Amino acid sequence: MADYKHILVAVDFSSESRVVVNKALEIARRNKAGLTLIHVVEYTGAVYAGDIPLPEDLELDQRLADQAKGQLKAMTEELGIPDAAQVVEIGVPKREIVRMAVERKADLIVIGSHGRHGLQLLLGSTANGVLHLSECDVLAVRVGKNGA
Amino acid sequence: MADYKHILVAVDFSSESRVVVNKALEIARRNKAGLTLIHVVEYTGAVYAGDIPLPEDLELDQRLADQAKGQLKAMTEELGIPDAAQVVEIGVPKREIVRMAVERKADLIVIGSHGRHGLQLLLGSTANGVLHLSECDVLAVRVGKNGA
Repeated sequence: MADYKHILVAVDFSSESRVVVNKALEIARRNKAGLTLIHVVEYTGAVYAGDIPLPEDLELDQRLADQAKGQLKAMTEELGIPDAAQVVEIGVPKREIVRMAVERKADLIVIGSHGRHGLQLLLGSTANGVLHLSECDVLAVRVGKNGA
Repeated sequence: MADYKHILVAVDFSSESRVVVNKALEIARRNKAGLTLIHVVEYTGAVYAGDIPLPEDLELDQRLADQAKGQLKAMTEELGIPDAAQVVEIGVPKREIVRMAVERKADLIVIGSHGRHGLQLLLGSTANGVLHLSECDVLAVRVGKNGA
């Protein structure tokens, strides 16, 4: 029976990210699979102030990406997996996650998924988009159960 | 680290159902978790002929449910897990699946998910709905990769 060989886990540095990464790590260990952590800095071209799109701020994107690299590194060191592959991309999260899954030949994507209330509906849309676009299995880890 | 304790797997008797059930079974074994198979007979009240809803056919629903029970039984016997819990419900698939997950205290739902092309978009909507409604983790197993 085919086990998972490479797992891609999406990290957003929310307070619940650790739960998601821990779950991915556990599955990777059980399957003796590779693990890649990805964080996507949302492309600022997509940020609107009212009806007016703000000008792109490529420098800000890059600064956020550099910062995210440091956060990923700190997270993997804390989890005792400093050698896990880490990537930071700038773009639309669902698309970058799915693209990276193909690039790394991942056969499982692990992603946090929020409940359906209020703001969480927006936050959950990345998991939803990944589910739609992905060519591989997707594990949506439910986080923020208490509406936090 | 918390393992999964009870896994609910949704079965639609498509040709790919076996892949999905096998994956759920493998996860159940690794986690020493309980396993419940569920099939939902789509409530015929939801079937429309053009713009005109057909009258409900509760007798047909019941006949389909009885038939599904036999199919589930045959499937579990073939897989060597005749003692796995099996339920057949009549209703809206995503709602019945999520309801049963709560009832059985499942902490993981395993469900097949089709690609996003053509008819598969419709078929994939149950996985999507479950992802939205569920309070527990959801593993969407990608089936029908070749557009079959």
